[in-house]
Amino acid sequence: MTFANVGTLGTVPGKRDELVAHLTRRSDQLTEIGCLAYEVGINDEEPNTVFVVELWESDAAHQASLAVPAVQESIAAARPLLSDDFGGFSFDVAGSPLRD
Amino acid sequence: MTFANVGTLGTVPGKRDELVAHLTRRSDQLTEIGCLAYEVGINDEEPNTVFVVELWESDAAHQASLAVPAVQESIAAARPLLSDDFGGFSFDVAGSPLRD
Repeated sequence: MTFANVGTLGTVPGKRDELVAHLTRRSDQLTEIGCLAYEVGINDEEPNTVFVVELWESDAAHQASLAVPAVQESIAAARPLLSDDFGGFSFDVAGSPLRD
Repeated sequence: MTFANVGTLGTVPGKRDELVAHLTRRSDQLTEIGCLAYEVGINDEEPNTVFVVELWESDAAHQASLAVPAVQESIAAARPLLSDDFGGFSFDVAGSPLRD
């Protein structure tokens, strides 16, 4: 079952665009490990926040991704850009009006 | 610029699955008016909440959708299923690691 992970990442002031650049760096490996979509964005009303919507083949694929060395390295590299203000939620996709 | 709208919809107790069925009813019109993705889901840790991730061609396309009669009818039909507990956020998509 498709799994969605949606989050807000608070950044150190002034580091938002650097975090966006980091998170949007091309990674074909993400597709290989079951990532279906990974949209990164901003909202100028919250200038120290980066927004992420992720879709994964399954909850298990998302969990497993966190143990992949390249993902762990990416998280470690992002850490200096982050405040500790995280938000968001996750859910199992039940369907979409855009498909049967 | 792709626009993302992410939300949590609190439901009247016991009405979650009815709201999921309502929101996932097939609508080709959504595609026609600029909706790129519309994922509806659940999380059993929050049994009276429905989760929605929407991607639109633009913020303007999303705004315009709210004035489309079929969308207004759908919102009106959903209203009896909803508590007034809404959450979420919206953002402009800056990119994705899955594409150049």
